[in-house]
Amino acid sequence: VSAEFTRFDQPQPVRGVRIASAAAGIRRPDRKDVLLVELAPGTRTAAVFTRNRFCAAPVTVARENLATASPRLLIFNAGNANAGTGTQGIADARKVTAAIAAAGDCTEAEVLPFSTGVIGERLPSDKLCAQAQALHRDLDENNWLDGATAIMTTDTVAKTASIRVSIDGSSYQISGLCKGSGMIHPNMATMLAFVATDAPLDASCLDAILATAVATTFNRITVDGDTSTNDACVLSATGAAGGEPMRQDHPHVAAITEGITRACEILAQAIVRDGEGATKFVEIEVLGPNEADCHAVANTVALSPLVKTALFASDPNWGRILAAVGRAPVASLELGAISIWLGDCQIVEHGEPCPGYDEAHADRVMAREEIKIRIIIGEEHASCRVWTCDFSYDYVRINAEYRS
Amino acid sequence: VSAEFTRFDQPQPVRGVRIASAAAGIRRPDRKDVLLVELAPGTRTAAVFTRNRFCAAPVTVARENLATASPRLLIFNAGNANAGTGTQGIADARKVTAAIAAAGDCTEAEVLPFSTGVIGERLPSDKLCAQAQALHRDLDENNWLDGATAIMTTDTVAKTASIRVSIDGSSYQISGLCKGSGMIHPNMATMLAFVATDAPLDASCLDAILATAVATTFNRITVDGDTSTNDACVLSATGAAGGEPMRQDHPHVAAITEGITRACEILAQAIVRDGEGATKFVEIEVLGPNEADCHAVANTVALSPLVKTALFASDPNWGRILAAVGRAPVASLELGAISIWLGDCQIVEHGEPCPGYDEAHADRVMAREEIKIRIIIGEEHASCRVWTCDFSYDYVRINAEYRS
Repeated sequence: VSAEFTRFDQPQPVRGVRIASAAAGIRRPDRKDVLLVELAPGTRTAAVFTRNRFCAAPVTVARENLATASPRLLIFNAGNANAGTGTQGIADARKVTAAIAAAGDCTEAEVLPFSTGVIGERLPSDKLCAQAQALHRDLDENNWLDGATAIMTTDTVAKTASIRVSIDGSSYQISGLCKGSGMIHPNMATMLAFVATDAPLDASCLDAILATAVATTFNRITVDGDTSTNDACVLSATGAAGGEPMRQDHPHVAAITEGITRACEILAQAIVRDGEGATKFVEIEVLGPNEADCHAVANTVALSPLVKTALFASDPNWGRILAAVGRAPVASLELGAISIWLGDCQIVEHGEPCPGYDEAHADRVMAREEIKIRIIIGEEHASCRVWTCDFSYDYVRINAEYRS
Repeated sequence: VSAEFTRFDQPQPVRGVRIASAAAGIRRPDRKDVLLVELAPGTRTAAVFTRNRFCAAPVTVARENLATASPRLLIFNAGNANAGTGTQGIADARKVTAAIAAAGDCTEAEVLPFSTGVIGERLPSDKLCAQAQALHRDLDENNWLDGATAIMTTDTVAKTASIRVSIDGSSYQISGLCKGSGMIHPNMATMLAFVATDAPLDASCLDAILATAVATTFNRITVDGDTSTNDACVLSATGAAGGEPMRQDHPHVAAITEGITRACEILAQAIVRDGEGATKFVEIEVLGPNEADCHAVANTVALSPLVKTALFASDPNWGRILAAVGRAPVASLELGAISIWLGDCQIVEHGEPCPGYDEAHADRVMAREEIKIRIIIGEEHASCRVWTCDFSYDYVRINAEYRS
């Protein structure tokens, strides 16, 4: 089966999905801050949530509701994370899902709540509830960009992705939106993201597709190493493209999985490109004996404040990369097996400074806005790519000023 | 046995230890950058080194020499770490130890080399060797402060500690010096530090004393999470105080260990107080069922860029502390068991916002230059204290500009 993938710059509608946004005045009076997603009857939905143990109230409620019913409505808000809010937070989240359900004529369990913003302050649920009628009235297939804009916090651009998969005369649309800029770290579910397709994917394969897509996209990005309390990624399949429900063995599923993974990669990379204070987009690729070790090394380099400040300074200070590799939590590491490249400039060969290393060449690589660091740690049986950004004055400013 | 501990502001000489410094022009022409320590014959020495797998050339040579002879001379340099320099780096380090040994009339194996500074550039060993005669000529018991000054890199103050232990009419002097400001993270040996005592400690108990002292001092500090390739901590006992060599069961050893630990704590805290760009000194104390979990939680909070930028902003954004606790790598953690204090202001009680929490009170705590964060994660059978600093614009500036 040969598949064709078409990527769109603007988000395309997905049949069976309607979106609305509104300004509830949660934190700022002058901006949209609520997003409602309506899923057509019969839509199947999978979701992954933060692995932070102190997950936010909406995550607890969303998990519970997802276990008892098929979601018909997703309600997102920016400006307040409803995290660290105890039992009051659960009650506030439920008040919102009840109001959204009542206005939409469905049960409370069919509504999933999502929140992002300041931690530790009570959610102004009344302000959200007051928008329930207006949100339902404004639902439209073409509101994806508006929706992505409504859930921005420290984000500076709205993030969407849209891919069409064509296979054997069938065509499936995949579109997604997400938010995220700080408190971003892999080994989690992801930030808030919603991806939908009109492919008639069976519930049995939806979880597997989402796990596959997230593993190499949202779970491979880091801005600051801080895993959020509110991360969630939702994948919905409306089935509006027609046809029988597809199980894992359907010949189209591999290509649809690939399309969904590509959409997730676009969204995940958009989060890193918009990382708080970021001036560089950095890919770290590690090759070695197994994926776990490659991931551990890539992650350690991606999280090193010294590597990240050197990237900000466009300084090819490769000793900091070597030092980070050397402290990565892997069982064994041979200095003689290590080779490192900055872009196409090799800096370390078999653990020694590369003969003929040319600092002017390395300077040119580091001056770019997109930088690739490639590290070999041993026999190349596996690999891992992690995306990160540099560490700038603006990261400190944004996070020092965030609540003021 | 009751012991008395006297702390001195100025470093006191330790009989059997002489110190000299010189300006070798390694990186800057206008500053002292070499330190020589001479240990009297019969001095016993223990050392711990970085756990970074890609340790620097001087660490490799020092480890080898320590295994074959009792050190008589320690040679330190700032400005160049001689790390990531391959086999050439080993040859350069040996060239320096040979020159120092020749000028001091001892064997090469009796010299331990230590380097700190830029990683990945060749050590200008000739410049160091040229100072060998002058260093030996200038050796003096009273040069501790000069010596601490000579090994500063991004440090802004020279760091020394001096404690006298008096027990049963006996008196032992303990003095130490260290450097360190960035690339600081626990779970390592330490930064460059040298501690000496005139107590006649037996070689059999010296390693144990050093391990005990480092575990709760140098291994409990973090500035940026980056473990250096050059960390080393050396403890020497000259025995000049007189008396038979002491074994672990000697009645004075416990008090001497306590004195050495106190000296190490002063030096370790001095590194954090002088952390790159630091404006706050922060103690994080975690109480819980076992020390490993307490350490993991304390470390995760101490390393969180979001907690550290909030500290810089004096913002009691405790949600970030809770989020960091929630992602700590411990087997189990119950939200209902968590209580958190900022200084004397309780912010979280049993996982819920503390009733009667007063943000004005928290603001006052955060405005201080020294801040204590106390976290209970379960039944209080064990505890761990970690010291860290905030994350400021200046950390980014210092590390972006370091090589330029």
